[in-house]
Amino acid sequence: MIQNDTIVALATPSGAGAIAVIRLSGNDAIDLVSDCFQPVTSNKQLVQQKTHTIHLGHIVDGQKTIDEVLVSIFKNPQSYTGENVVEISCHGSPYIQQEIIQLFLRKGCRMADAGEFTLRAFLNGKLDLSQAEAVADLIASDNEASHQIAMQQMRGGFSSEIAKLREELLNFASLIELELDFSEEDVEFADRTQFRELIDRITFVLKRLIDSFAVGNVIKNGIPVAIVGEPNVGKSTLLNALLNEERAIVSEIAGTTRDTIEDEISIGGIGFRFIDTAGIRETQDFVESIGIKKTFEKIEQSQVTIYLFDSSKGISDLKAIKLEIEKIKNKYPQKPLLIIANKIDKLDDTQLASLQAAIPEVKLLSAKTGFGVEQLTNALLNLINTGALRNNETIVTNTRHYDALLKAFEEIQKVKHGLDSGLSGDLMAIDVREALYYFGLITGEVTNDDLLGNIFANFCIGK
Amino acid sequence: MIQNDTIVALATPSGAGAIAVIRLSGNDAIDLVSDCFQPVTSNKQLVQQKTHTIHLGHIVDGQKTIDEVLVSIFKNPQSYTGENVVEISCHGSPYIQQEIIQLFLRKGCRMADAGEFTLRAFLNGKLDLSQAEAVADLIASDNEASHQIAMQQMRGGFSSEIAKLREELLNFASLIELELDFSEEDVEFADRTQFRELIDRITFVLKRLIDSFAVGNVIKNGIPVAIVGEPNVGKSTLLNALLNEERAIVSEIAGTTRDTIEDEISIGGIGFRFIDTAGIRETQDFVESIGIKKTFEKIEQSQVTIYLFDSSKGISDLKAIKLEIEKIKNKYPQKPLLIIANKIDKLDDTQLASLQAAIPEVKLLSAKTGFGVEQLTNALLNLINTGALRNNETIVTNTRHYDALLKAFEEIQKVKHGLDSGLSGDLMAIDVREALYYFGLITGEVTNDDLLGNIFANFCIGK
Repeated sequence: MIQNDTIVALATPSGAGAIAVIRLSGNDAIDLVSDCFQPVTSNKQLVQQKTHTIHLGHIVDGQKTIDEVLVSIFKNPQSYTGENVVEISCHGSPYIQQEIIQLFLRKGCRMADAGEFTLRAFLNGKLDLSQAEAVADLIASDNEASHQIAMQQMRGGFSSEIAKLREELLNFASLIELELDFSEEDVEFADRTQFRELIDRITFVLKRLIDSFAVGNVIKNGIPVAIVGEPNVGKSTLLNALLNEERAIVSEIAGTTRDTIEDEISIGGIGFRFIDTAGIRETQDFVESIGIKKTFEKIEQSQVTIYLFDSSKGISDLKAIKLEIEKIKNKYPQKPLLIIANKIDKLDDTQLASLQAAIPEVKLLSAKTGFGVEQLTNALLNLINTGALRNNETIVTNTRHYDALLKAFEEIQKVKHGLDSGLSGDLMAIDVREALYYFGLITGEVTNDDLLGNIFANFCIGK
Repeated sequence: MIQNDTIVALATPSGAGAIAVIRLSGNDAIDLVSDCFQPVTSNKQLVQQKTHTIHLGHIVDGQKTIDEVLVSIFKNPQSYTGENVVEISCHGSPYIQQEIIQLFLRKGCRMADAGEFTLRAFLNGKLDLSQAEAVADLIASDNEASHQIAMQQMRGGFSSEIAKLREELLNFASLIELELDFSEEDVEFADRTQFRELIDRITFVLKRLIDSFAVGNVIKNGIPVAIVGEPNVGKSTLLNALLNEERAIVSEIAGTTRDTIEDEISIGGIGFRFIDTAGIRETQDFVESIGIKKTFEKIEQSQVTIYLFDSSKGISDLKAIKLEIEKIKNKYPQKPLLIIANKIDKLDDTQLASLQAAIPEVKLLSAKTGFGVEQLTNALLNLINTGALRNNETIVTNTRHYDALLKAFEEIQKVKHGLDSGLSGDLMAIDVREALYYFGLITGEVTNDDLLGNIFANFCIGK
């Protein structure tokens, strides 16, 4: 799997900007760039320069100057990939980016595959596999919670927890296997009480990690929230209000202004995906009844339902509103439901009182004035069990890790059962080996080309 | 105009990528980053590090780690802006980019205005004004010719030519003004023959630069080409064929694959903008006649007209084709016209012969097989006077420079006239001063806030 050729790719997002960075990695990276680089401020060749230094000069293709650039040098093994790495910071025109990349392709570089820089970092022992996977998660993270989890994983929080358990288990495995060599003498090198204690501890940790996946998955993919409501009850005003609560500070930063309301909104650092539905008003109309069916489908797919109505209109027929709420409750008794009366700025005190009397659990909102928005965001956050997140515990977000943990858990249960039933060491050793295998899959001690191919194919090119 | 506060901006294109670069410039740039940076490999503070060095570490906001980053340090005056500059290379998630920029805004940085880094470089004497303008041109350049001109200008080719003339003129100006101090003695410090020789030289150079603007403008904005032809004569196949001729090598580079045919195609390093028109077939139909009117409008706006027809259909009525060609020629006798018979792969030899007999100047093409494409691209390039480009002469592409050159030329003509008519030194000195003023406008020796504001407002933020 290890390849020593020099790879090149654009590392920054494509398009025009002030600058762009082109990255090369491989044995010959520094030599290759040195051949096409005329330094401005130094007489030294690039290859003679120290690691972690920056040099101003021109990238030239024969007689032609392609660009004035800054070249950063990272020498093996003090680089991201562990190989010689050069980063060329050029002017951010797509034309220049192409010209420079093409130049190095002609000089013998190869276009990097998706994730190949990080793959090389893994193969050279700079990162373990779960850390490498966290790099892609980190780039994909778009809210505080997913960012925090990816960051923790990239810094080794998750793998060090797994690696520690693996090491202890490995230790016992060797003792048990040692017993097999002395099987005629009937000795027990592995203290069974300590071993049981370890198995219990591993069971506990695995169970916690496996349970954390539910939260992790939600954090990584966002929480789907179905908004049930007729047209004009103020859905988009509500989404805007939620958006403004969080995004006000962001708007002054270039590239983050938002012209359209996005369906995914980060609240308290957690992503919520709002799914608009048509409402469920009773009707004889065939077309409308299709709409109702779709609304129920969307509720089905969501973790939370918001029932939103225009209180200024609904006040005249609260019975109809209550009927619709009952219908949702009956169909989905387990699903969290938030009932929200919008446009309460249009109600007088008497109307407000009768509204609250009719629907005691109603939350009052004026998306227009902002009244009740904070209460709503708190209610949404309370629905999510973010205890683990707050306590800074390791959270599993990756399906591959989840699968391996489930299988390791299964094997550990077999070991436990073996201990309880006085299973012979040689049979127990097989189960322990299996558990060790699944631990190794997570951190990358056990691996194969297919697995690596699958993992790194999901990276962007240039990472 | 000079501001000493520290500015921050995203320097790379917005969006997700492997990495992103955030740039800070100002007196406190290094201190500010140092406060939020925990180095991984070194015990030293950032402020203690040498210029042009790179440091691995974490950007932290209190207890929270935002990202693992590489920080590059450039110390005043050895930086792009001439101030202290820090570049933070972080993971390329928009979320992380925002978090880091927001952190530094909270720490007292200000969001950089469009072009403010380059403006500061100009104010600190790192670039003259025409070089600074070339930076924006360089980023906007999307073909070899415009890139080459911008590169030459950024490296000082244009301004050094102007600066040299300005210095010589300035020299004579001082001598003439010295004469004024001794006006009672009737001496001539400025040798009138040498002066006339200089004025002639300046006239020659200015005339060449002014003339080059026609080519420069074409290169910067692309050459508009109207394609006149009915539907289904093969316009899009032709554009595809032209595109493939140039772009085949590019397609393997990420981000450059093109799903749709673009109207602007680079041929031989020059941009051509192809404008599709409906054709000019004679008709009684009112709607169609509007189409014909529009076609003529498009021809009007173009520098070159291509008349494209399907030879396999046209062969049966060459008279109609000839009539249309005559109509265009009569209306636009001065405009270059290329007559192209497409789909000649469908003709037999007899048909080909009669086609060429009827329309001797016809160019044969099979966009499908590629036959004739090269001949067509050569014909297009021959229409453009790229002599100056090939000879690596300075070419003016900027309207502001063109205007200043025209005015300087006018003043120089007045000086020349003054010399011819024996104008007194004091009056001549006024004209020389005026010419010097316009030279200074180009390179930025003469400037004001409005001018600078206009120029740098066209830059992207982060440059």
